[in-house]
Amino acid sequence: MPQEFRADPGLEGVIVGRSAISWVGGTTGELVYRGFDARELARGVPYESVAHLLLHGDPPAADPSPELTAALAAARGIPGPIVRAVDALPPQQPPLDALRSILSVLGDGSGAYPPTLEDGYRLIARSPVLLARFVRRAAGQEPVPPRPELGHVANYLAMLRGAAPDVRQVAALQAYFALLADHGMNASTFVLRIAISTHTDLASAATAALGTLKGPLHGGAPSRVSEMLDAVGAPEHAAEWVRERLARRELLYGFGHRAYKAEDPRGLRLHEVARTVADPRRLALAETVEREGLAALRAAHPSARIYANVEFYSAVVLEAIGLPPALFTPTFALARTAGWTAHALEQAADNRLIRPDLDYVGPPTGRRWPRPLPAG
Amino acid sequence: MPQEFRADPGLEGVIVGRSAISWVGGTTGELVYRGFDARELARGVPYESVAHLLLHGDPPAADPSPELTAALAAARGIPGPIVRAVDALPPQQPPLDALRSILSVLGDGSGAYPPTLEDGYRLIARSPVLLARFVRRAAGQEPVPPRPELGHVANYLAMLRGAAPDVRQVAALQAYFALLADHGMNASTFVLRIAISTHTDLASAATAALGTLKGPLHGGAPSRVSEMLDAVGAPEHAAEWVRERLARRELLYGFGHRAYKAEDPRGLRLHEVARTVADPRRLALAETVEREGLAALRAAHPSARIYANVEFYSAVVLEAIGLPPALFTPTFALARTAGWTAHALEQAADNRLIRPDLDYVGPPTGRRWPRPLPAG
Repeated sequence: MPQEFRADPGLEGVIVGRSAISWVGGTTGELVYRGFDARELARGVPYESVAHLLLHGDPPAADPSPELTAALAAARGIPGPIVRAVDALPPQQPPLDALRSILSVLGDGSGAYPPTLEDGYRLIARSPVLLARFVRRAAGQEPVPPRPELGHVANYLAMLRGAAPDVRQVAALQAYFALLADHGMNASTFVLRIAISTHTDLASAATAALGTLKGPLHGGAPSRVSEMLDAVGAPEHAAEWVRERLARRELLYGFGHRAYKAEDPRGLRLHEVARTVADPRRLALAETVEREGLAALRAAHPSARIYANVEFYSAVVLEAIGLPPALFTPTFALARTAGWTAHALEQAADNRLIRPDLDYVGPPTGRRWPRPLPAG
Repeated sequence: MPQEFRADPGLEGVIVGRSAISWVGGTTGELVYRGFDARELARGVPYESVAHLLLHGDPPAADPSPELTAALAAARGIPGPIVRAVDALPPQQPPLDALRSILSVLGDGSGAYPPTLEDGYRLIARSPVLLARFVRRAAGQEPVPPRPELGHVANYLAMLRGAAPDVRQVAALQAYFALLADHGMNASTFVLRIAISTHTDLASAATAALGTLKGPLHGGAPSRVSEMLDAVGAPEHAAEWVRERLARRELLYGFGHRAYKAEDPRGLRLHEVARTVADPRRLALAETVEREGLAALRAAHPSARIYANVEFYSAVVLEAIGLPPALFTPTFALARTAGWTAHALEQAADNRLIRPDLDYVGPPTGRRWPRPLPAG
């Protein structure tokens, strides 16, 4: 049995395993998928090919991956009982809560351990179909079925809107999907790997991961960046707004990341993407808030290495594409389904039940119940 | 920043935090809730009082806890949209998959961080109501509403059956609920605490925990003990059946546990409980299979300390109560909702985002995509 080790309560610096899927270079500001710089992949590699790379370890023979294109298209046909269960979800709830229930409902009991590529294709293919269906029905609109001639990302936009998506918007969202498809170890991926380590099925593990990604400290906060930009209103108010907010000891959203002590490479690339789709005034507002926020945070914490994180320009890009803030984190989760699947397959290939220990600091044993017990 | 530490891939021996809720004495065979021996609590303390102890740290002023009795009764009224969503779950799926979706559907967007006691009361109170409703509807039966005069455990049986539950069966299931209500750190509780550490809501964290508990290496296997007993058929076949099974290198179910290198205290107590409710022939069969299984496993692994685990006599007790095997793990999860709530509240009271690291062992960075990229 390994010796006892008291870890930092945030498990910072604790290496919980090995992975060949992606590497986060926190001090150099790099994100690498199977040896490829994610920023490069975000220059036009279709999501089918990024997912192919993450799942299979090498690029496909052509773009978009013929294998993934066929598998995802086949998986987009969803059994009626699952569709009807999704249609019965309360339409008033946030799409992020609906997506957690969608991932759970996708687990209809047919999944088993170990997870398979086919399980993953179903997860990747069906989540956007059912999320878009929920969003449209909640708005009183007819669902729009997937179109076989469209790629994965274009299909998502088309199913949300019912109209052919704008080419520049598809390219921007494709870059976003490439950049968010995996990110080494993080809270939701860790949860997914723990779940798989108990021999649960992929749908259960992905549902667990989504319940974790939902937290504002992980994936659940990019919409707050949009709210912050709305509240600032105009570049000339940014400095004062930031100063007053920090004086009230309130958070600025979209700054700082546990893993990065350098520029977040995803944020850098999304800033470039924002220039291709965002309204110039909104972009100028965001850039000013970023500059003023960083200046104020660095003045307040001179020794900290603080940068804008991925949420900052994610928000600018996703709102420029026309997605409502309530869809920002669900869209992040859709992009991450490829990474989750890759981690589930990797965990199952060399598995050991993940079960740590706790220090018990409660009352000592030997307390007696204050009343006689019926069974003596 | 803490130094890097390479942990055992199962995190065995890694102490990930402190807790005052429960203590697992793995070498002495003890399970303690807030200073109380769980085996003692299983001698008749109602679940409302066990949950009170776990949530508040001390026993209630009377049994069953007046505070929990009132809070759970109030929470058993469930909004119509949630009930209708549960009614639309595919009836063919296993109740354990349905329960994962039930926990998710209970998260209707109203929950926030930090979790509250009221969030916990809703989780504890509503899960059995909706699970029993699902089970009855899937069998083509009318749902049975909760009855205000019944305790939590008796209500669960009554809602499943539509008849007043047998007093001895209620007492046995109450002991089971007391013994399974918490268990220090384990995979599902760890997942719940990681989820809460991202500031997600309790419903999301509990859904994540259930997706993890579902794995056969954690909570998802007690039904296999019943199947094993059925396959053996009679005590005189046990020795041969065990020998042949091990010769085929197949698993015996219900033996061994990561945390216990002594008798599992829950199993010991459940063995006593089984004597009060089980058919004597079934009990004799189980005891013979336990004896022959232990003899064979210890002969094959002389240095290992192997005992029957909690699943072994859980199966005997739950089947004696009349629960079908498909409800064994869901019932375990219902018992654990009190422990999950206590851990969520404790994590939020002194929180730090749980985010470990991985060793990247994939291809080195610098690989080039084999085709030109559209965005150059």
